[in-house]
Amino acid sequence: MSEVKIILDTRGGDKGAEELVKGAALALERFPELKLALAGDRGVIGSAAKENGMPEDRFEIIEAATEITNYDDPAQALFKKTDSSMLVSMETLAKRGDIFGMITCGNTAVLLSGVIRYLPGETRVRPALAAVLPAQNGKFTCLVDTGATVDCNPQMLHHFARLGTQLMRDMYGIASPRVGLLSNGAEPTKGNKLVKETHPLLAADETLGFIGNVEGNNALSGVCDVLVCDGFAGNQVLKVTEGTAMRIMTDIMVYARRAKSRDIAALGEHLMGIYDIGSLGGGIVLGSPKPVIKARGSADAKAVVSVCGMLLNMAAHKAVFDAEKNKI
Amino acid sequence: MSEVKIILDTRGGDKGAEELVKGAALALERFPELKLALAGDRGVIGSAAKENGMPEDRFEIIEAATEITNYDDPAQALFKKTDSSMLVSMETLAKRGDIFGMITCGNTAVLLSGVIRYLPGETRVRPALAAVLPAQNGKFTCLVDTGATVDCNPQMLHHFARLGTQLMRDMYGIASPRVGLLSNGAEPTKGNKLVKETHPLLAADETLGFIGNVEGNNALSGVCDVLVCDGFAGNQVLKVTEGTAMRIMTDIMVYARRAKSRDIAALGEHLMGIYDIGSLGGGIVLGSPKPVIKARGSADAKAVVSVCGMLLNMAAHKAVFDAEKNKI
Repeated sequence: MSEVKIILDTRGGDKGAEELVKGAALALERFPELKLALAGDRGVIGSAAKENGMPEDRFEIIEAATEITNYDDPAQALFKKTDSSMLVSMETLAKRGDIFGMITCGNTAVLLSGVIRYLPGETRVRPALAAVLPAQNGKFTCLVDTGATVDCNPQMLHHFARLGTQLMRDMYGIASPRVGLLSNGAEPTKGNKLVKETHPLLAADETLGFIGNVEGNNALSGVCDVLVCDGFAGNQVLKVTEGTAMRIMTDIMVYARRAKSRDIAALGEHLMGIYDIGSLGGGIVLGSPKPVIKARGSADAKAVVSVCGMLLNMAAHKAVFDAEKNKI
Repeated sequence: MSEVKIILDTRGGDKGAEELVKGAALALERFPELKLALAGDRGVIGSAAKENGMPEDRFEIIEAATEITNYDDPAQALFKKTDSSMLVSMETLAKRGDIFGMITCGNTAVLLSGVIRYLPGETRVRPALAAVLPAQNGKFTCLVDTGATVDCNPQMLHHFARLGTQLMRDMYGIASPRVGLLSNGAEPTKGNKLVKETHPLLAADETLGFIGNVEGNNALSGVCDVLVCDGFAGNQVLKVTEGTAMRIMTDIMVYARRAKSRDIAALGEHLMGIYDIGSLGGGIVLGSPKPVIKARGSADAKAVVSVCGMLLNMAAHKAVFDAEKNKI
């Protein structure tokens, strides 16, 4: 098993650097092949690492003086806050061959602009933010875009389809990923203006396994491996799924307490393992030559472990973020 | 208890007129104040009514020779198929003071155009299709629009907010309904172009209880009484909620069988009562002076009973579809 080094931006999360370093320590325990570079305040990271008993030979600290917040203007931050932990992480990822990928909980807009500046892909298209979600059949569906670009044109959606296809092919070994276009009806004539104009582009692209329009109730039913939509609609699919699931989980827990049923409590835990979409995983930046994961602002230690697992899985499958392959 | 007469379009449903008439019979049994007018083929309706033992003094048949299908072009159908059961129902509803409201499972586009032609509101704006959904706190949230208009401008969304407010005020007695604007972030700066332009319109309207942007994970959490969005996004919220709920219900049933747990089977039934959004209820056409409900194409007898219940509830609350009040 070869080593994989990941850089973690310890700033920009709602729960503070200590929580993220705690997650880093748990991830090192869990994954023996993992090494980490922790970007942020050397003092804070150092003492948190000590407190959590992190083995010194498996991590390094990269000093970064400032933090990018959600109030920063992306364009300004990109040029004025080059000493921030997010941009330092990105620059380090771009320059150093020994670092495989990056994790940040910080400002999404700055992150995406940063990818264009520090990690430009071959395709010169604005990167997209994908979520790989558990589908009904035990497989996974890549939802793209989930919020990076909320006003899209048909060419962007076409590009999302290609990026998502590449991810699912290379990361999950699906030879011909089935691509669906999110719409308000299954018929090819259904959709808003954007969807109607995108449909023929996807249908005409022979490199795509386009299956046509997919409605919201089938979004994660497993009918497609890649579900394409603008970032506004994708954000709704992601968050409504999460909100509905969490709401039903809450109902189940309340019911279990009232009924004093161990069976139901066990069921609740089983379902949480599948549907706790919010606290697990993170968004994958597509269009970057090296993997960058955007974790939630609210990410806790457990989320850091989960996202490290995602990156190690990507490393094991290698191909997807290879710059040559990125020329699609 | 005063009588309420409803007209049911027996054509245009996937399951055929017999199934809908069966539902009509069940609804008459369930609701003693209900009377029905059944529009469609007199022969088919008559024999189905007999088979289901419908009391002759509580229904009438209105002959309509043709059917509007999902393949009909709305503009053409509106002028060429005036003898269809949908348009005959609408014309009857408009003309006859003794008929309170209408139910159809047929083509939504024709229905909405038909409302403009036969039941023009005071506001001269395209009608919207709302769904009143169960919110987490046991109350209800009116989601508008759910698919009538998939490409919207800010003025339309503003109008949806007013129509939804009126419905929740008059039908549910909420004095100042809280209005949320569906977005991809809670901050007022978040949203696609449409949402960003709509935000100040809603904020400036003092007749609305505008609470700001609402994210998808809070869509049905009960934070707002009216959730405003374009028909494409609303269709996603509706169908993703439904799809996620049905998926979890399936998981629970499979788990219950495997674990042979009666507790879990009982839980499953309890949850189905709340979350079986697809088979219960229907969309409410807002902007019509008289209530029109669009049931699912796949509606079965049970759905007919449920939708009759919705209309009777509206009748009990009267105010909402009063033409004078419609002048908002």
